[in-house]
This record gives sequence, structure tokens and C-alpha cells, in this order.
Amino acid sequence: MKIKHLVIGCSVLLSAHSAMAQQKPEDVIRNRQATFNVIAANVGRIKANLDGDYKKDQVVKAAAVIQAIANAGLNSLFVAGTDKGVGYHESQAKAELFDPANSKKVDEVVDNFNEQANQLALLTTIGDKAAVQAQFGKFRATCKACHDSFRVDSTAATPAPAPAK
Amino acid sequence: MKIKHLVIGCSVLLSAHSAMAQQKPEDVIRNRQATFNVIAANVGRIKANLDGDYKKDQVVKAAAVIQAIANAGLNSLFVAGTDKGVGYHESQAKAELFDPANSKKVDEVVDNFNEQANQLALLTTIGDKAAVQAQFGKFRATCKACHDSFRVDSTAATPAPAPAK
Repeated sequence: MKIKHLVIGCSVLLSAHSAMAQQKPEDVIRNRQATFNVIAANVGRIKANLDGDYKKDQVVKAAAVIQAIANAGLNSLFVAGTDKGVGYHESQAKAELFDPANSKKVDEVVDNFNEQANQLALLTTIGDKAAVQAQFGKFRATCKACHDSFRVDSTAATPAPAPAK
Repeated sequence: MKIKHLVIGCSVLLSAHSAMAQQKPEDVIRNRQATFNVIAANVGRIKANLDGDYKKDQVVKAAAVIQAIANAGLNSLFVAGTDKGVGYHESQAKAELFDPANSKKVDEVVDNFNEQANQLALLTTIGDKAAVQAQFGKFRATCKACHDSFRVDSTAATPAPAPAK
């Protein structure tokens, strides 16, 4: 299972390179930032439910968005040469993320994210609040693991929006 | 079925108002812009497959992202008072979108989007390229219908990213 995941991860990365070859780096970075904003917004929805009045329907839907994004392949958002640049704001990706020497570690963090996102989505449909809470913790740990290694200033909040033009 | 959809639409809008009450308008606008960026990126992925080498696996995954976002409720992204303002860039939503007099029409365009997005996701898994192509046209028509009525300058491309700070 682990081997299969790694193979999938690599093939996604390769196809991403060819598919994204004609995309401008700033477009890739913008898509990446938008995608992580959507993930964060849905993480926030789940957290609000866990911290307050638990509405299963909302949690199921939010987890399904995260799951679908995970399964579509985060790797395609990390095209070589896009560690520096401006999408909606300055890229927060470290150069280490694109270093071939780290490819095994990158595959691992992406695979862990995907596995825990899928497990979270499953548990929101069949588990109780306590089960979802526990799995939510495991899922968020995969976010943190990647941020700690591969994101600049991982403790910073999302940058403020740019002023109107 | 139609009545059920309208009822769901309204309840989502109401819960969105309470859930988003503590969110800053610029955060709501930023989440909205990020979400539509992700939808557009996945529409682009499907189009690239339909225009070129059709890879079912990629199309299934892209359609699943759009479906999950649709089912999570686009209405929650359109909180009253967020037609003007800056998220990642100036809001493109028209004031008419938030006018209670238009609520029935808004529910209809959102319901149509959701129905066609779900149908598209289904067809990507069971249909051939021609079937997906036809359904993709129906789906995109629901995007255009909303843009034509409720988005400022619907023919404009996505605004250029803001300069680095």
C-alpha cells in the first residue's frame, strides 16, 4: 500500500510537470495558494463544529472537499521553479521542497496528508464526534509536518490581502 | 426535488449568515475568490483533457473537487455585505446577488450549478469522453448563467496578482 502510494505520488508529479509546462509560475503559485486557502477554510469549519455545536452534515461536507483536493494530487501544485514568486502573495514554499534530494520525504508528507484526509472523510460519515476529533488531530499533524519542513515562516498567519488597485 | 433543493438552499444561506457572522468581510471575499480559483483550475484540467489526450483518472479527480465544493454550499461564500471589498483582489460580485428580491433566482443558479456538477462527476466515472464533453457543456452553462447576472465584467480574465509587498 505504501509502495503503491509512492508510485502514484511520483507519477502525479511527472504528469504535473508536463501538464503545467505551459502555465506561468505565478499562475501555479496562485492556484496553490487558492487551494490551501480552501483547505484551511474547511479545516476551520470542522474545527468550529468540534469546538461548538457539532453538525455532522457540515463536517461531512467540509471533509469531502479536503478529501477531493487531496486525491486530485497536491503534487501538481508544486512545480519546480515555483518556490519563489508572487501568486496572490509571495510564495511561502521553501526551495527544499523542490530539491530532488528531498523527493522521498516530500512524497511521504503528501502521502500522509492524503491518507489522513481520506480517513477523516470516512470517519465523518461513520464516526461520532470523539472519533472525528481524534482523526482531525492526526490529519492536522500531517499539515504541520509539511509546514515545519517546507513552508517559510510556518507560524505566520495568512498574509493580509493586497490593497485595491 | 426542485422544492427540496430550494429549501436546502435557503437553510444553507441562513446558517452561513450565523456561521460567518464573526468572519471579516475581506476574509469571506478571499475565501470566495480562492474557491472559484480552485473550481476554475479544475474546469481547466477537464477542458485540457477533452481538448487533448483524455485521461479518465485526471478528469474523475478534477470533477470530484468541483462536486465536493458544490455540495459544501456555494451560498456560504456569499454573505450579505460582501459585494464590495477586497479579498485577494476587488470583489467581482454585483450588489444584485445579495438583494433579497433576487433570492429565488440566486437559489436557482446555485441549484443548477450543484445539479450539473454532481451529474458531471457521475458521468466522469461511468461515461465516455463524448458523454463527459456534453455534460461539461451543460455544467459550464450554469457558471456562465451566474456570471452573466451576478458578476461584474464577466468577460474579464482573473485579475493579475498583486505586486509583492
